[in-house]
Amino acid sequence: MQKPQVLDLADKGVKIVATDLAGSEEELKKALTGIEVVISTIYGGSVTAEISLINAAKAVGVQRYVPCFFATVAPPTGALRLRELKEETFNHIKKIKLPYTIIDVGWWYQVNLPRLPSGRIDYAVMETSDGIAVDGNVPVAFTDMRDIGLYTARIIVDPRTLNRMVFAYNEVLTFNQMYDVAERVPAEEIEAQVREMEAKDPAPDSVDFITLTHRQYWNSCCVRGDNTPENAQYLGYLLAKDLYPEFAGITLETYCREVLEGKGKKVYEHIQDLPSIKAANKGLH
Amino acid sequence: MQKPQVLDLADKGVKIVATDLAGSEEELKKALTGIEVVISTIYGGSVTAEISLINAAKAVGVQRYVPCFFATVAPPTGALRLRELKEETFNHIKKIKLPYTIIDVGWWYQVNLPRLPSGRIDYAVMETSDGIAVDGNVPVAFTDMRDIGLYTARIIVDPRTLNRMVFAYNEVLTFNQMYDVAERVPAEEIEAQVREMEAKDPAPDSVDFITLTHRQYWNSCCVRGDNTPENAQYLGYLLAKDLYPEFAGITLETYCREVLEGKGKKVYEHIQDLPSIKAANKGLH
Repeated sequence: MQKPQVLDLADKGVKIVATDLAGSEEELKKALTGIEVVISTIYGGSVTAEISLINAAKAVGVQRYVPCFFATVAPPTGALRLRELKEETFNHIKKIKLPYTIIDVGWWYQVNLPRLPSGRIDYAVMETSDGIAVDGNVPVAFTDMRDIGLYTARIIVDPRTLNRMVFAYNEVLTFNQMYDVAERVPAEEIEAQVREMEAKDPAPDSVDFITLTHRQYWNSCCVRGDNTPENAQYLGYLLAKDLYPEFAGITLETYCREVLEGKGKKVYEHIQDLPSIKAANKGLH
Repeated sequence: MQKPQVLDLADKGVKIVATDLAGSEEELKKALTGIEVVISTIYGGSVTAEISLINAAKAVGVQRYVPCFFATVAPPTGALRLRELKEETFNHIKKIKLPYTIIDVGWWYQVNLPRLPSGRIDYAVMETSDGIAVDGNVPVAFTDMRDIGLYTARIIVDPRTLNRMVFAYNEVLTFNQMYDVAERVPAEEIEAQVREMEAKDPAPDSVDFITLTHRQYWNSCCVRGDNTPENAQYLGYLLAKDLYPEFAGITLETYCREVLEGKGKKVYEHIQDLPSIKAANKGLH
């Protein structure tokens, strides 16, 4: 309730209500009564905690529920453990017949800045970011995280997207193309790292889970090539570019220019400051 | 190879090739080389044995793979254990990016004939059939199994159905409407039976699994109301009635008239003759 972003929303006249997902269903139902659209932006590893919110949304007649996806396109199982958790909540939604929209947005520019040898943009690089995956030639769909809300605002009022999956992205680029904009960094051995982390079977709220997820994103996006518009359509997604051709998102070039000019901003600040994350990350270097 | 239906196909000039799903992948690849469309009609409880066929189909470049669904619409998890097995194969298809079409056809007339007090149509009633579920007022989509091939022939050459789920059905009726055509039989306690059978966690090739499946179909179709065109669209299916408005399937009334005239035919004859099925079934009455 006291986060600057929350206070900022309150200043704009947004009504802020705190509630406990693990608390009473009556409280959740009360909080959701009269709400038309629910958008969850919970931490990825906690998506199964949404089940109580989903049940309450169904009970009070919410007309569209947007579970926390907002990431890359991937098959339901076998590529990303994080995706499998999200599919569990999606399957629960389908089981109770709650109207839904799934929004995926590709990989965020903000979590994919390279760590440059010069250290010049380290102030904006995510703490777990290091290296690029394999040969860097696989097409990957990217989005500026600041555009996610703008896409979402269009999608949730659009009857074409009700009970559909939508894929919104700004640009499709290979990592090599991306790093021609910035600076190239060396490739790494991804799959062995994924196997190693998978063998640990980490709990979703652990540091190991975040590391596993990052390596699985590499594997899914940069080895398997899951995160492309073509694969999204194959898996049943609508494309936001087809639905909203007039919407032009921020380009990677614009974003990189901002970062090089010192106007970037680190993401997951609550994570990067955890000593455990720094220690775990160091072990992988 | 010696089944009358197989010999019948061979007589029509269809090339018959026997192969072993648990055998060498090279053999499977050889059998599938040059094949454009693969349609699996394996026993439902054995669908995960399709994985080797799916992998071979991908390896030789099959252009469309139709896994063995051909049943009712249901959510991916939580309603039908059989559906969950099918979703496992579907997820594997999506993981390896094999072009697919899912075809569901609702509930077959042939497995839903009531056991009449008079015994007049027992010759055509499936051995595990007995009673109707709950109040009989939930809409259920039905299809004559003899139409499944006709739907499939249209669907597999249709570019609109590539990488989509299609729901083909002949009529939407409640069980009460259905038994007004024939004769009413009493309702039963479904959910307790489902829980009881689920607790046994039966293997897919067991008699208990078949009984569990039948009770879960009742629960899914007649209690939850999963098997309707509206729910199919909610879950992402195309409707065959939209795609092929000119195709008129066999009506339930026509089918029932045939059965009452003695022209029906029992399904799952290999199952009904197993003494273990008869014994297990007796235990439930």
